Amino acid sequence: MSTESPLDTAEAIRIAAFRGVIRSFLRTSEHLARSAGLTPRRYLLLLMIKGAPDGSEQSTVTELAERLQLAQSTVTELVGRAERAGLVERERSGSDLRVAHLRLTPDGERRLARSARSNEDERHELRRRLDELDDR
Amino acid sequence: MSTESPLDTAEAIRIAAFRGVIRSFLRTSEHLARSAGLTPRRYLLLLMIKGAPDGSEQSTVTELAERLQLAQSTVTELVGRAERAGLVERERSGSDLRVAHLRLTPDGERRLARSARSNEDERHELRRRLDELDDR
Repeated sequence: MSTESPLDTAEAIRIAAFRGVIRSFLRTSEHLARSAGLTPRRYLLLLMIKGAPDGSEQSTVTELAERLQLAQSTVTELVGRAERAGLVERERSGSDLRVAHLRLTPDGERRLARSARSNEDERHELRRRLDELDDR
Repeated sequence: MSTESPLDTAEAIRIAAFRGVIRSFLRTSEHLARSAGLTPRRYLLLLMIKGAPDGSEQSTVTELAERLQLAQSTVTELVGRAERAGLVERERSGSDLRVAHLRLTPDGERRLARSARSNEDERHELRRRLDELDDR
């Protein structure tokens, strides 16, 4: 089939439902973050610092920019605001003075934990519904 | 465990990876839509019209606002621009003159099909990676 021939109705319904499920997950997640006093972006920032894949629970701005797929200048600003809000703290690296390591403050830890835990049912629901769509 | 006690490291890594996978899916999807000449929002608009759950391949602004989880005024504007761009057309409903039914033009069909088909591998990859995370 040509890539340009119209989608058939059933295919379009399935793909639309797939996107609908993801959209609805993200909306709920944003809502839950706000209930813990975090903007959606700040929730992601805290999550990516705490959930650094190497298990160090800390990150540099450069690593965060890559993981958040955002410009380094955007992340620098985001981190600055989170720092002033008392959610994140930085310390200079021993080996390289230019590299600041970021980690969560106790308040940052609390808000992240609240958002992430309240979101757990939604994560299961998302997977369940995506699997269901795949089975049709 | 209190909802406010810090996440443990492994839990944070798992949740961060989960969000990373979704973010990366959406980024790729946006990129593929742009390659077919569609903004990410316009791609979603066309998809939600064509993929109406009742199989009619058409929608009203009210239905779209609900499915896109956007304000009705935002959707009205989005539809107006898509109409002027030749992607969507509207016809008055026979039974209710206030309700315009929207459907895709042939050009809208083509662009939607291109974006949606190029995105298929990504949808499978998203499900695969989410399932993988669940198994850990």
